[in-house]
Amino acid sequence: MNPDIKRERENATFNVETLTNILDGSPQKTKRRREIESLVLNDPDFWEDDPNFLSRSERYDQAVRKSAQMILKLREYGISDPDEIYCYKNCVHPNRAEPLDLHLGMFLPTLLNQATSEQMDRFFMPAWNLEIIGTYAQTEMGHGTHLRGLETTATYDPSTQEFVLNSPTISSIKWWPGGLGKTSNHAIVLAQLYTQGKCHGLHAFIVPIRDIKTHEPLPGIVVGDIGPKFGFNEIDNGFLKLENVRIPRENMLMKYAKVEPDGAYVKPPSSKLTYGTMVFIRSLIVGTSAKAVAKSSTIAIRYSTVRRQSEIRPGQPEPQILDYQTQQYKLFPVLAMAYAFTFVGQYMTQTYQRITGDINEGDFSELPELHALSAGLKAFTTWAANSAIEVCRMSCGGHGYSRSSALPDIYTEFTPSCTYEGENTVMMLQTARYLVKSYRLAKNGQQLSGIVSYLNDAGRGRVQPQTVSSRPIVVDVNDLSSLVEVYKLRAAILVELAAKNIQQDMQRRKSEEDAWNNNAIDLVKASDAHCHYVVVKLFTDKLGEIGDTGVHSVLSTLALLYTLHGIALNSGDFLQAGLLSVPQMLQISVRIKDLLSQLRPNAVALVDAFNFTDRTLNSVLGRYDGNVYDNMYEWARRSPLNSTEVHKSFHKYLKPLRAKL
Amino acid sequence: MNPDIKRERENATFNVETLTNILDGSPQKTKRRREIESLVLNDPDFWEDDPNFLSRSERYDQAVRKSAQMILKLREYGISDPDEIYCYKNCVHPNRAEPLDLHLGMFLPTLLNQATSEQMDRFFMPAWNLEIIGTYAQTEMGHGTHLRGLETTATYDPSTQEFVLNSPTISSIKWWPGGLGKTSNHAIVLAQLYTQGKCHGLHAFIVPIRDIKTHEPLPGIVVGDIGPKFGFNEIDNGFLKLENVRIPRENMLMKYAKVEPDGAYVKPPSSKLTYGTMVFIRSLIVGTSAKAVAKSSTIAIRYSTVRRQSEIRPGQPEPQILDYQTQQYKLFPVLAMAYAFTFVGQYMTQTYQRITGDINEGDFSELPELHALSAGLKAFTTWAANSAIEVCRMSCGGHGYSRSSALPDIYTEFTPSCTYEGENTVMMLQTARYLVKSYRLAKNGQQLSGIVSYLNDAGRGRVQPQTVSSRPIVVDVNDLSSLVEVYKLRAAILVELAAKNIQQDMQRRKSEEDAWNNNAIDLVKASDAHCHYVVVKLFTDKLGEIGDTGVHSVLSTLALLYTLHGIALNSGDFLQAGLLSVPQMLQISVRIKDLLSQLRPNAVALVDAFNFTDRTLNSVLGRYDGNVYDNMYEWARRSPLNSTEVHKSFHKYLKPLRAKL
Repeated sequence: MNPDIKRERENATFNVETLTNILDGSPQKTKRRREIESLVLNDPDFWEDDPNFLSRSERYDQAVRKSAQMILKLREYGISDPDEIYCYKNCVHPNRAEPLDLHLGMFLPTLLNQATSEQMDRFFMPAWNLEIIGTYAQTEMGHGTHLRGLETTATYDPSTQEFVLNSPTISSIKWWPGGLGKTSNHAIVLAQLYTQGKCHGLHAFIVPIRDIKTHEPLPGIVVGDIGPKFGFNEIDNGFLKLENVRIPRENMLMKYAKVEPDGAYVKPPSSKLTYGTMVFIRSLIVGTSAKAVAKSSTIAIRYSTVRRQSEIRPGQPEPQILDYQTQQYKLFPVLAMAYAFTFVGQYMTQTYQRITGDINEGDFSELPELHALSAGLKAFTTWAANSAIEVCRMSCGGHGYSRSSALPDIYTEFTPSCTYEGENTVMMLQTARYLVKSYRLAKNGQQLSGIVSYLNDAGRGRVQPQTVSSRPIVVDVNDLSSLVEVYKLRAAILVELAAKNIQQDMQRRKSEEDAWNNNAIDLVKASDAHCHYVVVKLFTDKLGEIGDTGVHSVLSTLALLYTLHGIALNSGDFLQAGLLSVPQMLQISVRIKDLLSQLRPNAVALVDAFNFTDRTLNSVLGRYDGNVYDNMYEWARRSPLNSTEVHKSFHKYLKPLRAKL
Repeated sequence: MNPDIKRERENATFNVETLTNILDGSPQKTKRRREIESLVLNDPDFWEDDPNFLSRSERYDQAVRKSAQMILKLREYGISDPDEIYCYKNCVHPNRAEPLDLHLGMFLPTLLNQATSEQMDRFFMPAWNLEIIGTYAQTEMGHGTHLRGLETTATYDPSTQEFVLNSPTISSIKWWPGGLGKTSNHAIVLAQLYTQGKCHGLHAFIVPIRDIKTHEPLPGIVVGDIGPKFGFNEIDNGFLKLENVRIPRENMLMKYAKVEPDGAYVKPPSSKLTYGTMVFIRSLIVGTSAKAVAKSSTIAIRYSTVRRQSEIRPGQPEPQILDYQTQQYKLFPVLAMAYAFTFVGQYMTQTYQRITGDINEGDFSELPELHALSAGLKAFTTWAANSAIEVCRMSCGGHGYSRSSALPDIYTEFTPSCTYEGENTVMMLQTARYLVKSYRLAKNGQQLSGIVSYLNDAGRGRVQPQTVSSRPIVVDVNDLSSLVEVYKLRAAILVELAAKNIQQDMQRRKSEEDAWNNNAIDLVKASDAHCHYVVVKLFTDKLGEIGDTGVHSVLSTLALLYTLHGIALNSGDFLQAGLLSVPQMLQISVRIKDLLSQLRPNAVALVDAFNFTDRTLNSVLGRYDGNVYDNMYEWARRSPLNSTEVHKSFHKYLKPLRAKL
């Protein structure tokens, strides 16, 4: 082990294993996670070529091989708990989307939720046994965010009792669904349903797209890969053009809405039933944000203790780059973010489970709040994580740019989460809509409950920007609970400001819609402040659950850093609202520097606690043993460009060039 | 042409060609640029396969072919002006580094600057005729930023009159030099010179690394490619390990420092002579930042007028996404940045040329300021551009993630500029050192001149944070010149704050070095504020040179947006220092929204004025004609994964899997 990183571990002031258990949920969960991980890591069937050295077709090929193995092994070991399957999958395909993601994560669950029992009989077991491999084809070339705008049509023909599916325009070609390009032989296609001359909006249809035996595209189907992307090299995001494709009436998913043989349309009983999945997936994304930041900070912080460069004091040995204040200022807030988002992710999962219980008992009351929260937090955490990964990469200097660092891959695999499952700006505006609505209710005298209850005061004019003296100011910038209060007031003020601006525009005879668009910047800001408040609140709440003194102490320091750093970055908001004074801002700057120094000895232990294996990280810079340089050299020598000493281009172009000059 | 984008062009309020001429420098320069571009674009020898569809080895191969062609053509056409060569090269290899970059941009110029006439005779013409292909090998695996820490040694052996070069450790292996891996047969190696038992620091040596005829590595040389990176797929960044490699004494570059045959060392006359190149390259990078932002905003803004999505007003057709305030708020500040940085880049080049004239007449007086300015602006513009590219990419939704958008490539090719030629944080700290030094001089009564002259007041205590009433406040947030004043005062206050914090720490018995590191966050902030001031000042100054009313008007709007947006993002600084009041901040928020609406009709014309050809952009989303969807479909169908209908992995893994389940 590299002596620098060894010393870091010796200097830690808390027990790493205790913290790992907290992150996993319990010592038992840590144990079980490690068991599952070792099933994959010790299994020679999962050995792989470094994807960095493969072509895209080879990467796809390798991913299909591993996914097929994965299905076999999961059944062999009898792993059936969704969390455990997820853990196993993340170990088989670390950081990466894979060809069967949509089959397992969307096709099968959609059957379970929306298929009739007759459809279950026909489709589920074949799909379970991968005779049918399916995807979920919703997004089109011309429409992602705006589902009502999707153009694909499914027109019912009562004479044959079939639906006729069509892509009427270029922009209506299905575009992006994972596994659609080469892997799937079926797709659940979202299309505008036409029957008896009327459009009834989007419905889901099971469409065979390739021959089960030969895998050739079926008549009327034009299907393929949408081409190379920023990342996602393992997965065949595809396109699908439908040209008068006929499917039996029974292929419409008819658990809720129905089309009768004569073409009569039967409405679904409730529209809220498909709502939950979206909330669930967005809640999960909060957790993946945390994971991406945890991985990136593990790599950057370990490397920063091994890398020595330049000088702080003349004549002394080169310092570890983590001793530079600027490096700490880049990485420790990111580290704090990783912890914050992990705890927020845990909260979201727990809340989702609790509310699902309520929903099953017919109580939908908390769903709108969770919907708004999951939308906003999805956007808030993915945007923050997205920037944080790049901060980590660039903090590793040139070597962060090498694929051997794994940081480029973490970024390219993560960044689409800012766009998919709800584009982030749209998500923020959805949350804002809920906040403004809540504010208006409070203003009209209704008592709000739940996380937006802070708007009760705002609605009643008790929160006034710019009247510093009338509001309780934080006395102590070290007191987390009063800082949480300040975040709360900031959110209340920004929600109120946005709501009032909209009101004003409407009084100037703008339509509500135009007023909304004309204040969208303020609305996004309000949502952002709301989410930021929720994150600092949940981080602070979590501290109350932690009994171990050493862990409690270091996590409190992290929480304080996260909170103060957030204030420093948004100091204009807090000053403008009179929530903090100028001397307090100067105090906060000083305090942040103290906290950086305070965290310095525990930095490596704090990333060790995330407990990533070297195989999962796949990063030369982030190795547990810190032996970076030897392994970087070894990795480079395996680069395909080094398979010959002389590249053929020398003989083809460079040598002949001489004669011509 | 797409009717939406056509209408945009019809609605513009200024003459695009006039603005293009301003960006190029003059109508003549526009004409000449287009001539050079068409030489490349109409030349079938430069037709290429879309690199997105090639393996890395194929991309390198294609790049070598084009570079070889480029050398031939440049000589055939007699293009020898450096600007014109640069333009030609950027057209041959749009957005991309290429295998001969270091040969042309570093090896040849270093010979010109540092070789003796005897060495010129031996090396220059062979290098000019590409018999010798060279690179510049400075960075090692263990050292980039800290040159004094480089470990490669060149030990003089008087018995044979040779230098013996060695890589004594793994971390001393040369790492990263472009063209080193496979292309070059020579390298200028930077090594610690040892002679007569003493180390004399870094010197440059010409080292043959591959056989001129066979291109095989020479004895004692281990050379190769460092492996795949985030981008830079066309270039073979390489490693070089030297094992007792002997070169004749005459291969040390001896125009300045020398080693006599007996081993006696002769010092160079001045250390300032190599300083200029660095300043020049950093000044150039400001221009490449501008180009990257200009390209990205061209793609995103054109696409945003073609893409229609969702609704603002119910019942109306889907709006162009550029009509959403949030989209304007993402893209128009980026557009303004592209213009700001273009003008700053022009200023830097002009200033460099002027000062080079002075230097040739022995006047070094302005060099330190230019050095500090180029370091800071390199960091300021590359960081800002780096984020801006990603804002543009993500504003295109899912399609921005496809390589067909070109945005992933613009990002991966651009982002290393935050690290190379001086890591950005280090650059900011260098500028800060100059600022603090200037501040101290002013405090000691010296009259500063040049761009830091604003510190004269600060040094004399005339700038006091938090005493709002005593300072002239901006009356009108629409007045650019008073806004520039405010930026200046912010810089002065932040420089003073950092300097005072350092002073305070030193009074608490910290060493100057520790005090420096303990206030590095503040120092970076001060540099950042200084650079921001310079940018708004130069943008505003530029407006004074523009006679055309239509262009002047739209650029003034852009400059005001750039300036106010910068204040909004850093509102805490301005409030904290009492430079702007809370009501003014609210006014600024409103004003920014007005400016967005005001710019909306000119957005496409403003990106058209950058005058990129479709070939240079290579972006389906950024096409001049706006025909996005048809071309995206056409592009996808050419994806290599679509060369067969059925991927071999189906027969290898998926079909056999069924039998096992």
